[in-house]
Amino acid sequence: MNVPNSNLKRIVIVGGGFGGLQLAKNLPAGKYQVVMIDRQNYHCFQPLLYQVATAGLEAGNIAFPLRKIFQTKEGFYFRMTEVKEVDAEQKKVMTTIGDLSYDILVLATGSATNFFGNKSLEQHSMSMKTIVEALNIRSLLLQNFEKALLTDDLKERQSLMNVVIVGGGPTGVELAGAVSELKKHILPRDYPDLDFRWMDVKLLEAGDRVLSGMADVSSQKAEKYLKKLGVQVMTKTMVKDFDGKSITTESSTIPAQTLIWAAGVHCEPPKGFAPSAIAKGNRLAVDEFNRVKGYDHVYAIGDAAQMSNEKYPQGHPMVAQPAIQQGRTLAKNLLRELKGKEWRPFKYIDLGTMATIGRTKAVSELPGWKSQGAIAWLIWIFVHLMALVGFRNRLVVFITWTYNFINYNRDIRLIIRPFRSFEERKVAFAKAKEVAAE
Amino acid sequence: MNVPNSNLKRIVIVGGGFGGLQLAKNLPAGKYQVVMIDRQNYHCFQPLLYQVATAGLEAGNIAFPLRKIFQTKEGFYFRMTEVKEVDAEQKKVMTTIGDLSYDILVLATGSATNFFGNKSLEQHSMSMKTIVEALNIRSLLLQNFEKALLTDDLKERQSLMNVVIVGGGPTGVELAGAVSELKKHILPRDYPDLDFRWMDVKLLEAGDRVLSGMADVSSQKAEKYLKKLGVQVMTKTMVKDFDGKSITTESSTIPAQTLIWAAGVHCEPPKGFAPSAIAKGNRLAVDEFNRVKGYDHVYAIGDAAQMSNEKYPQGHPMVAQPAIQQGRTLAKNLLRELKGKEWRPFKYIDLGTMATIGRTKAVSELPGWKSQGAIAWLIWIFVHLMALVGFRNRLVVFITWTYNFINYNRDIRLIIRPFRSFEERKVAFAKAKEVAAE
Repeated sequence: MNVPNSNLKRIVIVGGGFGGLQLAKNLPAGKYQVVMIDRQNYHCFQPLLYQVATAGLEAGNIAFPLRKIFQTKEGFYFRMTEVKEVDAEQKKVMTTIGDLSYDILVLATGSATNFFGNKSLEQHSMSMKTIVEALNIRSLLLQNFEKALLTDDLKERQSLMNVVIVGGGPTGVELAGAVSELKKHILPRDYPDLDFRWMDVKLLEAGDRVLSGMADVSSQKAEKYLKKLGVQVMTKTMVKDFDGKSITTESSTIPAQTLIWAAGVHCEPPKGFAPSAIAKGNRLAVDEFNRVKGYDHVYAIGDAAQMSNEKYPQGHPMVAQPAIQQGRTLAKNLLRELKGKEWRPFKYIDLGTMATIGRTKAVSELPGWKSQGAIAWLIWIFVHLMALVGFRNRLVVFITWTYNFINYNRDIRLIIRPFRSFEERKVAFAKAKEVAAE
Repeated sequence: MNVPNSNLKRIVIVGGGFGGLQLAKNLPAGKYQVVMIDRQNYHCFQPLLYQVATAGLEAGNIAFPLRKIFQTKEGFYFRMTEVKEVDAEQKKVMTTIGDLSYDILVLATGSATNFFGNKSLEQHSMSMKTIVEALNIRSLLLQNFEKALLTDDLKERQSLMNVVIVGGGPTGVELAGAVSELKKHILPRDYPDLDFRWMDVKLLEAGDRVLSGMADVSSQKAEKYLKKLGVQVMTKTMVKDFDGKSITTESSTIPAQTLIWAAGVHCEPPKGFAPSAIAKGNRLAVDEFNRVKGYDHVYAIGDAAQMSNEKYPQGHPMVAQPAIQQGRTLAKNLLRELKGKEWRPFKYIDLGTMATIGRTKAVSELPGWKSQGAIAWLIWIFVHLMALVGFRNRLVVFITWTYNFINYNRDIRLIIRPFRSFEERKVAFAKAKEVAAE
């Protein structure tokens, strides 16, 4: 890969998510040469993906061009590609655009949707870890309502209108709330010919409560808010199969053509690591300095890293805060290294958790203060606005939220690129044979 | 197609562009049953597509959900589909989702890019008539700069950096200006490793001046502004061929991998019309009431219609104003019809033309007042903001423009969905054979 040589040691950061971004931001120019690699040319603010999926925000509102962040830093490089393999012996990474040597490698590669090996779910359900996936959900939801208008078969119509979300974590809860608000305020006005009593929004959770990472009071309130919005919360329910038309659980069959899978993530680290370095969910096992076990110059942060300790035997939660804090700590340690100072171990400061369900309805757990309802909702808004990258994004999101709140509206209900189902893609592929023969 | 029966006469409007939208807006509820058909579920403000293509605005800023416009009007229906054929004998349209009968049919189908039969141009160059096409241009421009970083072959690098725009009308001029501003203010900061003296922005025009629809003074000023921004304006230049790598004109070869074709449009009316009803560029020949010649209950408005008269022997210019005005006039005439009043012929009021080239640089021709420079630029901004559909869109565009102006910035430089070239698609198609066989 085409990166200039330098007298400085080279840090290669793989991934421009929360962790990678904080690391790069906290490394001053002139100390190291820094090369960031990402498949996308932007940082994506994942906590608001669900609003892109439900026509509340535009894709560009939650994305920020990575190159802009590096503009002012000499010796900082960005390359848009994917790391396929790591060769720790020779200290290089292999990418789709060639090899790149490193002195220090940091994997901040995040996590991907985990279907736990269920092929039918993987083929037919929608995941929501990237902007493209969120846009696909937006298109599919709207396409299904356009289709529902065209059929006289009431069963088919119902299955087109139903939306099932699997996974009762913050993502699933927020999605279910947002879809339910679409059902309540937007869709009946857009589709007056459809009877919305036939539309079900179901939230399926395998455990016995939603938001299992939060306190009981938050789970209970969240479930109450969801039910008030008309969401059918089904706990202790495992999805077995989905053929694109109906969803099979252990005890029932749900007619639905939209299944959004928010029930699990796992990591997909590059090839080249010894099995001993791979922990549960394919996270890389790291010590308290985020060093990958058994690899001297390789670090992992955020979702990609599992740092086990007494309080977090399974590693830290796979959310933004541990990634942000590990990125900052690692940057400080790498600067300490240059001064010959000793490294300081990472200590996670839990700043709290929150989830919004709908208008004036949220649950929030800050250190020492649990709140629910309108206050939690205002805290949620404030925290998310401040955390967005870029002043323009913050301003536009604030205006859009204010406008949507006053007007009970979501103007981004646009099918820019129609989503094609697995079956439709199969047909297109078959047709493509002829085109390819040309 | 599934549309309820009604005692009212049914007007089917094909197309939700400027003409169709004005027609629908000016028809009150309860007079006719109105069914609008469009391939998209949104109205697109085409005059600002070039800003979506050059990372200045988001797609959603210039789109507005069509269903929202109809929410308050009982008896108004929207169906997302495409009209394939018209059967005027039986008074019905054939669509991809079934047939629909009409009492009155209005074709407001706009125009599409015209490559004048040149297959190599059609395969390899980019057109910009839809939001998806504008997004493709945005992705391609950015992808090419990412690629340029990776090659040591300086000729290849130059061809990746060069951008050639064909067509010196308002679209081509505005695009050339916007790309040149990217080159001047944005790209060198994002790609400090590239030498931007190698990047050419060329505007090719077959005629002897740009903006040939405007007065000489506007053409001259526009060309001066373009040159000041670094655009190479090549008049009297016809493009012969483009293989995706280099562009062949009558007298030279230009190494460039991006060719944006803004050199012509034509219409693609549904099948079923007699040759006598088809005018130049496949526009439908209409009388002064927009009635398609030889068809009693079929009307065409906007780009799709050619209304020849003394002042406009080739029909009205294919821009927004004639479409808007014809939509309004036809609505009034259709209401007159109900009262047994006589129809009034359409009279085009030319409100003027304008084109913006860059920061504080525009040319404007209002009735009786030609201006250039900062004043024309402010007029352009005001007119375009006011013409945008939707209060939120206006507000967000205003903020984005203000922000971009102050910061010399364009934050939407995101490759959300990478664009794949003709060759890349061919390879993917070939691979798809195996997938389809699964």
